[in-house]
Amino acid sequence: MPVTNVTVEAYGLTVQDEVREGDSLEALILRASDNRGMSLLSGDILVISSKVVSKSEGRVVRGEEVSVSDKAAAIAKANGFDPVHVQIALHEASEVIRDVKVLITETHSGLVCNFSGVDRSNTEEGTYVLLPSDPDASAARIRSELEKHTGAELAVIISDTQGRPWRKGSINVAIGCAGISPFKMNAGKRDLYGRELKRSTVCQVDELCALAENLMGQANERTPFVLIRGYTTTDRTGKCTEINRPREEDLVR
Amino acid sequence: MPVTNVTVEAYGLTVQDEVREGDSLEALILRASDNRGMSLLSGDILVISSKVVSKSEGRVVRGEEVSVSDKAAAIAKANGFDPVHVQIALHEASEVIRDVKVLITETHSGLVCNFSGVDRSNTEEGTYVLLPSDPDASAARIRSELEKHTGAELAVIISDTQGRPWRKGSINVAIGCAGISPFKMNAGKRDLYGRELKRSTVCQVDELCALAENLMGQANERTPFVLIRGYTTTDRTGKCTEINRPREEDLVR
Repeated sequence: MPVTNVTVEAYGLTVQDEVREGDSLEALILRASDNRGMSLLSGDILVISSKVVSKSEGRVVRGEEVSVSDKAAAIAKANGFDPVHVQIALHEASEVIRDVKVLITETHSGLVCNFSGVDRSNTEEGTYVLLPSDPDASAARIRSELEKHTGAELAVIISDTQGRPWRKGSINVAIGCAGISPFKMNAGKRDLYGRELKRSTVCQVDELCALAENLMGQANERTPFVLIRGYTTTDRTGKCTEINRPREEDLVR
Repeated sequence: MPVTNVTVEAYGLTVQDEVREGDSLEALILRASDNRGMSLLSGDILVISSKVVSKSEGRVVRGEEVSVSDKAAAIAKANGFDPVHVQIALHEASEVIRDVKVLITETHSGLVCNFSGVDRSNTEEGTYVLLPSDPDASAARIRSELEKHTGAELAVIISDTQGRPWRKGSINVAIGCAGISPFKMNAGKRDLYGRELKRSTVCQVDELCALAENLMGQANERTPFVLIRGYTTTDRTGKCTEINRPREEDLVR
Protein backbone atom coordinates (compact mmCIF):
# COMPACT_ATOMS: atom_id res chain seq x y z
CA MET A 1 0.00 0.00 0.00
CA PRO A 2 1.59 3.30 -1.03
CA VAL A 3 2.14 5.60 1.91
CA THR A 4 0.02 8.33 0.35
CA ASN A 5 -3.04 6.19 0.86
CA VAL A 6 -2.50 5.49 4.52
CA THR A 7 -5.35 6.58 6.73
CA VAL A 8 -6.04 5.61 10.29
CA GLU A 9 -9.54 5.91 11.61
CA ALA A 10 -10.72 5.80 15.20
CA TYR A 11 -14.27 5.30 16.38
CA GLY A 12 -15.58 5.73 19.89
CA LEU A 13 -17.84 2.93 21.10
CA THR A 14 -20.24 3.86 23.87
CA VAL A 15 -22.02 2.11 26.71
CA GLN A 16 -25.38 3.07 28.21
CA ASP A 17 -24.77 2.09 31.81
CA GLU A 18 -21.87 2.04 34.20
CA VAL A 19 -19.86 -1.18 33.93
CA ARG A 20 -20.25 -3.42 37.02
CA GLU A 21 -18.48 -6.47 38.39
CA GLY A 22 -19.19 -9.50 36.25
CA ASP A 23 -20.24 -7.54 33.14
CA SER A 24 -18.89 -9.01 29.92
CA LEU A 25 -16.81 -6.38 28.16
CA GLU A 26 -16.83 -8.52 25.03
CA ALA A 27 -20.64 -8.37 24.93
CA LEU A 28 -20.58 -4.61 25.54
CA ILE A 29 -18.05 -4.08 22.76
CA LEU A 30 -20.02 -6.19 20.29
CA ARG A 31 -23.26 -4.41 21.16
CA ALA A 32 -21.63 -0.98 20.91
CA SER A 33 -20.08 -1.68 17.52
CA ASP A 34 -23.38 -3.13 16.34
CA ASN A 35 -25.11 0.09 17.47
CA ARG A 36 -22.74 1.99 15.20
CA GLY A 37 -23.49 -0.37 12.33
CA MET A 38 -19.95 -1.71 12.40
CA SER A 39 -18.58 -5.23 12.55
CA LEU A 40 -15.15 -6.02 13.91
CA LEU A 41 -12.77 -6.90 11.09
CA SER A 42 -9.37 -8.57 11.03
CA GLY A 43 -6.70 -5.98 11.77
CA ASP A 44 -8.95 -3.90 14.02
CA ILE A 45 -7.46 -2.73 17.30
CA LEU A 46 -9.63 -2.16 20.37
CA VAL A 47 -8.37 0.21 23.02
CA ILE A 48 -10.20 -0.30 26.30
CA SER A 49 -10.16 2.03 29.30
CA SER A 50 -8.59 0.31 32.30
CA LYS A 51 -11.39 1.70 34.44
CA VAL A 52 -14.03 -0.55 32.89
CA VAL A 53 -11.70 -3.55 32.92
CA SER A 54 -11.15 -3.01 36.64
CA LYS A 55 -14.85 -2.59 37.33
CA SER A 56 -15.79 -5.71 35.38
CA GLU A 57 -13.13 -7.63 37.31
CA GLY A 58 -14.36 -6.32 40.67
CA ARG A 59 -11.19 -4.35 41.37
CA VAL A 60 -13.11 -1.79 43.43
CA VAL A 61 -12.47 -1.22 47.13
CA ARG A 62 -14.79 0.40 49.69
CA GLY A 63 -12.84 2.94 51.73
CA GLU A 64 -14.65 2.05 54.95
CA GLU A 65 -13.20 -1.47 54.77
CA VAL A 66 -9.60 -0.24 54.63
CA SER A 67 -7.46 0.14 57.75
CA VAL A 68 -4.82 2.81 57.38
CA SER A 69 -1.26 1.91 58.46
CA ASP A 70 1.02 4.34 60.29
CA LYS A 71 3.14 4.65 57.16
CA ALA A 72 0.17 5.57 54.98
CA ALA A 73 -1.11 8.00 57.61
CA ALA A 74 2.29 9.72 57.74
CA ILE A 75 2.56 10.08 53.95
CA ALA A 76 -1.01 11.36 53.79
CA LYS A 77 -0.46 13.88 56.57
CA ALA A 78 2.81 15.20 55.12
CA ASN A 79 1.25 15.81 51.71
CA GLY A 80 -2.41 16.52 52.42
CA PHE A 81 -3.52 13.30 50.73
CA ASP A 82 -6.52 11.12 51.53
CA PRO A 83 -5.10 8.48 53.97
CA VAL A 84 -7.30 5.70 52.57
CA HIS A 85 -6.17 6.51 49.02
CA VAL A 86 -2.54 6.32 50.16
CA GLN A 87 -3.14 3.05 52.01
CA ILE A 88 -4.66 1.38 48.97
CA ALA A 89 -1.87 2.72 46.75
CA LEU A 90 0.74 1.27 49.14
CA HIS A 91 -1.06 -2.07 49.14
CA GLU A 92 -0.88 -2.13 45.34
CA ALA A 93 2.82 -1.16 45.33
CA SER A 94 5.99 -3.20 45.43
CA GLU A 95 8.04 -0.03 45.99
CA VAL A 96 7.50 3.60 46.90
CA ILE A 97 9.67 5.68 44.57
CA ARG A 98 8.80 9.18 45.75
CA ASP A 99 6.43 10.34 48.47
CA VAL A 100 7.09 14.07 48.73
CA LYS A 101 4.36 16.17 47.05
CA VAL A 102 3.55 13.14 44.88
CA LEU A 103 3.15 9.43 45.51
CA ILE A 104 5.01 7.62 42.76
CA THR A 105 5.11 3.86 43.15
CA GLU A 106 5.98 0.72 41.28
CA THR A 107 2.99 -1.61 41.18
CA HIS A 108 3.21 -5.37 41.64
CA SER A 109 2.93 -5.73 37.87
CA GLY A 110 5.95 -3.41 37.42
CA LEU A 111 4.22 -0.23 36.29
CA VAL A 112 5.65 3.03 37.63
CA CYS A 113 2.86 5.55 38.18
CA ASN A 114 1.06 7.94 40.49
CA PHE A 115 -0.76 6.34 43.47
CA SER A 116 -0.32 2.85 41.93
CA GLY A 117 -3.00 3.93 39.45
CA VAL A 118 -5.68 3.86 42.17
CA ASP A 119 -8.42 6.31 41.21
CA ARG A 120 -11.42 7.89 42.91
CA SER A 121 -13.21 9.42 39.92
CA ASN A 122 -16.10 7.79 38.06
CA THR A 123 -16.76 5.39 40.90
CA GLU A 124 -19.34 5.37 43.65
CA GLU A 125 -18.66 7.84 46.49
CA GLY A 126 -16.34 6.28 49.04
CA THR A 127 -14.96 3.66 46.63
CA TYR A 128 -11.60 3.37 44.89
CA VAL A 129 -10.82 1.69 41.58
CA LEU A 130 -7.56 -0.28 41.40
CA LEU A 131 -5.78 -1.13 38.16
CA PRO A 132 -6.41 -4.63 36.80
CA SER A 133 -4.01 -6.95 38.62
CA ASP A 134 -2.59 -8.40 35.38
CA PRO A 135 -3.56 -6.09 32.50
CA ASP A 136 -1.76 -8.17 29.85
CA ALA A 137 -3.79 -11.20 30.93
CA SER A 138 -7.01 -9.16 30.89
CA ALA A 139 -6.23 -8.01 27.34
CA ALA A 140 -5.49 -11.57 26.23
CA ARG A 141 -8.75 -12.86 27.69
CA ILE A 142 -10.88 -10.13 26.08
CA ARG A 143 -9.11 -10.58 22.75
CA SER A 144 -9.67 -14.32 22.80
CA GLU A 145 -13.41 -13.91 23.52
CA LEU A 146 -13.83 -11.30 20.80
CA GLU A 147 -11.98 -13.42 18.26
CA LYS A 148 -14.16 -16.40 19.14
CA HIS A 149 -17.33 -14.37 18.53
CA THR A 150 -16.23 -12.56 15.39
CA GLY A 151 -13.75 -14.85 13.66
CA ALA A 152 -11.60 -11.76 13.11
CA GLU A 153 -7.94 -11.44 14.07
CA LEU A 154 -7.89 -8.57 16.56
CA ALA A 155 -5.63 -6.70 18.94
CA VAL A 156 -6.66 -5.42 22.35
CA ILE A 157 -4.89 -2.68 24.32
CA ILE A 158 -5.83 -1.59 27.85
CA SER A 159 -5.14 2.08 28.50
CA ASP A 160 -4.72 4.29 31.54
CA THR A 161 -4.23 8.04 31.81
CA GLN A 162 -0.97 8.92 33.52
CA GLY A 163 1.23 11.90 34.31
CA ARG A 164 4.84 12.34 33.24
CA PRO A 165 7.93 13.28 35.28
CA TRP A 166 8.92 16.37 33.33
CA ARG A 167 5.96 17.23 31.14
CA LYS A 168 2.70 18.68 32.42
CA GLY A 169 -0.64 17.11 31.63
CA SER A 170 -1.54 13.46 31.41
CA ILE A 171 -1.65 11.24 28.39
CA ASN A 172 -3.17 7.85 27.84
CA VAL A 173 -0.64 4.99 27.89
CA ALA A 174 -0.86 1.23 27.44
CA ILE A 175 -0.79 -1.00 30.52
CA GLY A 176 -1.86 -4.25 28.88
CA CYS A 177 -1.96 -5.64 25.36
CA ALA A 178 -2.62 -8.76 23.31
CA GLY A 179 -2.32 -9.39 19.60
CA ILE A 180 0.12 -6.53 19.03
CA SER A 181 3.74 -5.90 19.93
CA PRO A 182 4.25 -2.97 22.31
CA PHE A 183 7.06 -1.75 20.08
CA LYS A 184 7.52 -0.87 16.46
CA MET A 185 11.10 -1.66 15.68
CA ASN A 186 12.77 0.73 13.31
CA ALA A 187 16.21 -0.74 13.93
CA GLY A 188 17.45 -2.23 10.68
CA LYS A 189 15.41 0.16 8.55
CA ARG A 190 17.36 2.67 6.50
CA ASP A 191 17.23 6.43 6.68
CA LEU A 192 17.21 8.97 3.83
CA TYR A 193 20.95 8.43 3.38
CA GLY A 194 20.75 4.65 3.38
CA ARG A 195 22.29 4.35 6.84
CA GLU A 196 20.86 1.74 9.12
CA LEU A 197 18.91 3.06 12.12
CA LYS A 198 20.50 1.44 15.14
CA ARG A 199 18.27 2.09 18.08
CA SER A 200 14.99 3.56 17.02
CA THR A 201 12.14 1.87 18.82
CA VAL A 202 8.72 3.45 19.03
CA CYS A 203 6.23 2.41 21.71
CA GLN A 204 3.34 1.95 19.31
CA VAL A 205 0.79 0.81 21.90
CA ASP A 206 1.32 4.04 23.88
CA GLU A 207 0.80 6.00 20.68
CA LEU A 208 -2.42 4.13 19.93
CA CYS A 209 -3.71 4.79 23.46
CA ALA A 210 -2.90 8.48 23.08
CA LEU A 211 -4.93 8.50 19.89
CA ALA A 212 -7.82 6.74 21.61
CA GLU A 213 -7.95 9.11 24.58
CA ASN A 214 -9.44 11.98 22.66
CA LEU A 215 -12.48 9.83 21.89
CA MET A 216 -12.67 8.30 25.35
CA GLY A 217 -12.35 11.56 27.22
CA GLN A 218 -11.98 11.58 30.96
CA ALA A 219 -15.01 13.41 32.27
CA ASN A 220 -17.29 10.40 32.30
CA GLU A 221 -16.86 6.82 31.21
CA ARG A 222 -19.48 6.64 28.47
CA THR A 223 -16.95 5.86 25.73
CA PRO A 224 -14.68 3.25 27.28
CA PHE A 225 -13.85 1.55 23.96
CA VAL A 226 -12.16 2.91 20.86
CA LEU A 227 -11.93 0.96 17.63
CA ILE A 228 -8.86 1.77 15.53
CA ARG A 229 -8.96 0.72 11.91
CA GLY A 230 -6.29 1.02 9.23
CA TYR A 231 -3.26 0.70 11.48
CA THR A 232 -0.87 -1.85 10.07
CA THR A 233 1.37 -3.88 12.29
CA THR A 234 3.09 -7.15 11.61
CA ASP A 235 4.43 -8.36 14.94
CA ARG A 236 1.46 -9.56 16.96
CA THR A 237 3.24 -10.82 20.07
CA GLY A 238 4.45 -9.16 23.25
CA LYS A 239 3.26 -7.76 26.55
CA CYS A 240 3.08 -4.32 28.09
CA THR A 241 5.28 -5.42 30.99
CA GLU A 242 8.13 -5.18 28.43
CA ILE A 243 7.63 -1.40 28.40
CA ASN A 244 8.63 -1.00 32.04
CA ARG A 245 12.24 0.13 32.21
CA PRO A 246 14.41 -2.13 34.29
CA ARG A 247 15.52 -0.47 37.53
CA GLU A 248 19.06 0.13 36.32
CA GLU A 249 17.84 2.07 33.29
CA ASP A 250 15.26 4.10 35.19
CA LEU A 251 16.15 7.78 35.24
CA VAL A 252 14.15 8.57 38.34
CA ARG A 253 15.39 6.03 40.85
CA MET B 1 -22.58 16.13 17.78
CA PRO B 2 -23.45 12.89 19.56
CA VAL B 3 -20.38 11.07 20.78
CA THR B 4 -21.27 7.96 18.80
CA ASN B 5 -20.55 9.82 15.60
CA VAL B 6 -17.12 11.07 16.56
CA THR B 7 -14.41 9.98 14.18
CA VAL B 8 -10.90 11.30 13.89
CA GLU B 9 -9.04 10.79 10.65
CA ALA B 10 -5.34 11.20 9.99
CA TYR B 11 -3.68 11.46 6.58
CA GLY B 12 0.01 11.33 5.85
CA LEU B 13 1.25 13.99 3.44
CA THR B 14 4.44 13.18 1.59
CA VAL B 15 7.32 15.04 0.00
CA GLN B 16 9.40 13.93 -2.97
CA ASP B 17 12.75 15.41 -1.98
CA GLU B 18 14.64 16.05 1.21
CA VAL B 19 13.74 19.40 2.75
CA ARG B 20 16.60 21.94 2.53
CA GLU B 21 17.35 25.31 4.09
CA GLY B 22 15.04 27.98 2.73
CA ASP B 23 12.36 25.55 1.50
CA SER B 24 8.83 26.76 2.18
CA LEU B 25 7.07 24.15 4.32
CA GLU B 26 3.76 25.89 3.60
CA ALA B 27 4.26 25.32 -0.14
CA LEU B 28 5.26 21.69 0.45
CA ILE B 29 2.18 21.10 2.63
CA LEU B 30 -0.17 22.67 0.10
CA ARG B 31 1.37 20.68 -2.75
CA ALA B 32 1.23 17.43 -0.77
CA SER B 33 -2.41 17.88 0.20
CA ASP B 34 -3.24 18.82 -3.37
CA ASN B 35 -1.53 15.61 -4.54
CA ARG B 36 -3.91 13.71 -2.28
CA GLY B 37 -6.87 15.60 -3.71
CA MET B 38 -7.46 17.30 -0.37
CA SER B 39 -7.89 20.94 0.55
CA LEU B 40 -7.16 22.24 4.02
CA LEU B 41 -10.40 23.02 5.86
CA SER B 42 -11.14 25.01 8.99
CA GLY B 43 -10.54 22.83 12.03
CA ASP B 44 -7.76 20.83 10.38
CA ILE B 45 -4.64 20.23 12.43
CA LEU B 46 -1.24 19.81 10.79
CA VAL B 47 1.42 17.92 12.68
CA ILE B 48 4.88 18.63 11.29
CA SER B 49 8.06 16.70 12.03
CA SER B 50 10.59 18.95 13.79
CA LYS B 51 13.27 17.53 11.50
CA VAL B 52 11.90 19.27 8.41
CA VAL B 53 11.26 22.48 10.34
CA SER B 54 14.89 22.45 11.47
CA LYS B 55 16.18 21.73 7.98
CA SER B 56 14.08 24.48 6.40
CA GLU B 57 15.37 26.90 9.05
CA GLY B 58 18.97 25.89 8.47
CA ARG B 59 19.40 24.35 11.93
CA VAL B 60 21.99 21.86 10.66
CA VAL B 61 25.59 21.83 11.88
CA ARG B 62 28.64 20.30 10.17
CA GLY B 63 30.59 18.26 12.68
CA GLU B 64 33.97 19.32 11.25
CA GLU B 65 33.20 22.93 12.21
CA VAL B 66 32.63 22.07 15.87
CA SER B 67 35.40 22.31 18.46
CA VAL B 68 34.91 19.91 21.33
CA SER B 69 35.33 21.29 24.85
CA ASP B 70 37.04 19.37 27.65
CA LYS B 71 33.66 18.90 29.33
CA ALA B 72 32.09 17.43 26.21
CA ALA B 73 35.11 15.21 25.63
CA ALA B 74 34.90 13.89 29.20
CA ILE B 75 31.17 13.10 28.97
CA ALA B 76 31.70 11.44 25.59
CA LYS B 77 34.60 9.34 26.84
CA ALA B 78 32.82 8.20 30.01
CA ASN B 79 29.77 7.03 28.07
CA GLY B 80 31.11 6.05 24.67
CA PHE B 81 29.27 8.89 22.95
CA ASP B 82 30.30 10.83 19.84
CA PRO B 83 32.20 13.87 21.25
CA VAL B 84 30.89 16.21 18.56
CA HIS B 85 27.31 15.11 19.27
CA VAL B 86 27.85 15.81 22.98
CA GLN B 87 29.43 19.21 22.25
CA ILE B 88 26.49 20.32 20.11
CA ALA B 89 24.01 19.03 22.72
CA LEU B 90 25.80 21.02 25.45
CA HIS B 91 25.73 24.12 23.28
CA GLU B 92 21.97 23.74 22.91
CA ALA B 93 21.49 23.17 26.65
CA SER B 94 20.89 25.53 29.53
CA GLU B 95 21.46 22.69 32.01
CA VAL B 96 22.81 19.15 32.05
CA ILE B 97 20.41 17.05 34.11
CA ARG B 98 22.07 13.67 33.84
CA ASP B 99 25.23 12.59 32.04
CA VAL B 100 25.75 9.02 33.20
CA LYS B 101 24.74 6.44 30.54
CA VAL B 102 22.42 9.09 29.05
CA LEU B 103 22.74 12.78 28.30
CA ILE B 104 19.56 14.44 29.52
CA THR B 105 19.54 18.20 29.21
CA GLU B 106 17.23 21.14 29.41
CA THR B 107 17.35 23.13 26.18
CA HIS B 108 17.38 26.92 26.02
CA SER B 109 13.67 26.78 25.16
CA GLY B 110 13.02 24.75 28.35
CA LEU B 111 12.50 21.30 26.88
CA VAL B 112 13.94 18.39 28.86
CA CYS B 113 15.16 15.68 26.51
CA ASN B 114 17.96 13.43 25.35
CA PHE B 115 21.00 15.17 23.79
CA SER B 116 19.05 18.46 23.58
CA GLY B 117 17.14 16.82 20.73
CA VAL B 118 20.21 16.93 18.45
CA ASP B 119 19.94 14.11 15.93
CA ARG B 120 22.23 12.42 13.42
CA SER B 121 19.73 10.38 11.42
CA ASN B 122 18.18 11.44 8.13
CA THR B 123 20.81 14.08 7.58
CA GLU B 124 23.93 14.15 5.43
CA GLU B 125 26.88 12.16 6.81
CA GLY B 126 28.84 14.27 9.28
CA THR B 127 26.00 16.69 9.95
CA TYR B 128 23.75 17.11 12.97
CA VAL B 129 20.19 18.46 13.06
CA LEU B 130 19.31 20.72 15.99
CA LEU B 131 15.77 21.36 17.18
CA PRO B 132 14.17 24.57 15.94
CA SER B 133 15.35 27.34 18.30
CA ASP B 134 11.79 28.53 19.06
CA PRO B 135 9.36 25.80 17.98
CA ASP B 136 6.25 27.72 19.13
CA ALA B 137 7.30 30.63 16.92
CA SER B 138 7.96 28.27 13.99
CA ALA B 139 4.49 26.78 14.41
CA ALA B 140 2.90 30.24 14.54
CA ARG B 141 4.69 31.34 11.39
CA ILE B 142 3.72 28.23 9.41
CA ARG B 143 0.12 28.47 10.63
CA SER B 144 -0.11 32.10 9.63
CA GLU B 145 1.19 31.39 6.10
CA LEU B 146 -1.14 28.44 5.63
CA GLU B 147 -4.16 30.41 6.84
CA LYS B 148 -3.27 33.24 4.46
CA HIS B 149 -3.15 30.83 1.51
CA THR B 150 -6.22 28.76 2.36
CA GLY B 151 -8.56 31.08 4.28
CA ALA B 152 -9.09 28.16 6.68
CA GLU B 153 -8.67 28.35 10.46
CA LEU B 154 -5.93 25.85 11.21
CA ALA B 155 -3.74 24.54 13.99
CA VAL B 156 -0.08 23.57 13.61
CA ILE B 157 1.88 21.30 15.93
CA ILE B 158 5.60 20.55 15.64
CA SER B 159 6.52 17.09 16.86
CA ASP B 160 9.66 15.32 17.97
CA THR B 161 10.25 11.70 18.94
CA GLN B 162 11.52 11.38 22.50
CA GLY B 163 12.26 8.77 25.14
CA ARG B 164 10.69 8.59 28.58
CA PRO B 165 12.33 8.24 32.01
CA TRP B 166 10.58 5.05 33.08
CA ARG B 167 8.97 3.62 29.97
CA LYS B 168 10.89 2.00 27.12
CA GLY B 169 10.47 3.12 23.55
CA SER B 170 10.02 6.59 22.18
CA ILE B 171 6.83 8.40 21.38
CA ASN B 172 6.17 11.52 19.40
CA VAL B 173 5.53 14.60 21.54
CA ALA B 174 4.74 18.24 20.81
CA ILE B 175 7.52 20.82 21.04
CA GLY B 176 5.72 23.73 19.36
CA CYS B 177 2.13 24.66 18.60
CA ALA B 178 -0.11 27.42 17.30
CA GLY B 179 -3.88 27.62 17.01
CA ILE B 180 -4.49 24.98 19.66
CA SER B 181 -4.10 24.85 23.42
CA PRO B 182 -1.54 22.28 24.60
CA PHE B 183 -4.02 21.11 27.21
CA LYS B 184 -7.55 19.86 27.26
CA MET B 185 -8.98 20.93 30.57
CA ASN B 186 -11.31 18.45 32.16
CA ALA B 187 -11.39 20.33 35.45
CA GLY B 188 -14.93 21.54 36.05
CA LYS B 189 -16.46 18.70 34.02
CA ARG B 190 -18.51 16.18 35.97
CA ASP B 191 -17.91 12.48 36.34
CA LEU B 192 -20.43 9.62 36.20
CA TYR B 193 -21.50 10.48 39.74
CA GLY B 194 -21.89 14.20 39.10
CA ARG B 195 -18.74 15.07 41.05
CA GLU B 196 -16.56 17.79 39.66
CA LEU B 197 -13.17 16.65 38.35
CA LYS B 198 -10.61 18.75 40.13
CA ARG B 199 -7.30 18.26 38.42
CA SER B 200 -7.69 16.34 35.22
CA THR B 201 -5.66 17.94 32.45
CA VAL B 202 -4.76 16.05 29.32
CA CYS B 203 -1.86 17.13 27.12
CA GLN B 204 -3.82 16.99 23.89
CA VAL B 205 -1.01 18.15 21.61
CA ASP B 206 1.19 15.27 22.79
CA GLU B 207 -1.66 12.88 22.07
CA LEU B 208 -2.11 14.30 18.58
CA CYS B 209 1.61 13.94 17.89
CA ALA B 210 1.51 10.35 19.08
CA LEU B 211 -1.32 9.72 16.64
CA ALA B 212 0.63 11.37 13.82
CA GLU B 213 3.81 9.38 14.40
CA ASN B 214 2.45 6.16 13.02
CA LEU B 215 1.93 7.84 9.67
CA MET B 216 5.21 9.75 9.77
CA GLY B 217 7.34 6.80 10.75
CA GLN B 218 10.96 7.26 11.66
CA ALA B 219 12.90 5.32 9.09
CA ASN B 220 12.96 8.06 6.47
CA GLU B 221 11.45 11.50 6.31
CA ARG B 222 9.16 11.07 3.33
CA THR B 223 5.98 11.77 5.32
CA PRO B 224 6.88 14.78 7.46
CA PHE B 225 3.32 16.13 7.61
CA VAL B 226 0.16 14.58 9.00
CA LEU B 227 -3.25 16.14 8.54
CA ILE B 228 -5.70 15.41 11.36
CA ARG B 229 -9.35 16.00 10.63
CA GLY B 230 -12.35 15.66 12.92
CA TYR B 231 -10.64 16.57 16.17
CA THR B 232 -12.67 19.15 18.03
CA THR B 233 -11.03 21.67 20.30
CA THR B 234 -12.32 25.00 21.49
CA ASP B 235 -9.37 26.72 23.11
CA ARG B 236 -7.06 27.86 20.34
CA THR B 237 -4.41 29.67 22.36
CA GLY B 238 -1.30 28.54 24.21
CA LYS B 239 2.28 27.43 23.65
CA CYS B 240 4.19 24.21 24.10
CA THR B 241 6.57 25.87 26.55
CA GLU B 242 3.65 25.63 29.02
CA ILE B 243 4.10 21.84 28.97
CA ASN B 244 7.57 22.00 30.52
CA ARG B 245 7.30 21.28 34.23
CA PRO B 246 8.79 23.99 36.39
CA ARG B 247 11.97 22.86 38.13
CA GLU B 248 10.29 22.50 41.52
CA GLU B 249 7.70 20.08 40.13
CA ASP B 250 10.18 18.05 38.10
CA LEU B 251 10.47 14.50 39.42
CA VAL B 252 13.91 13.89 38.01
CA ARG B 253 15.92 16.84 39.26
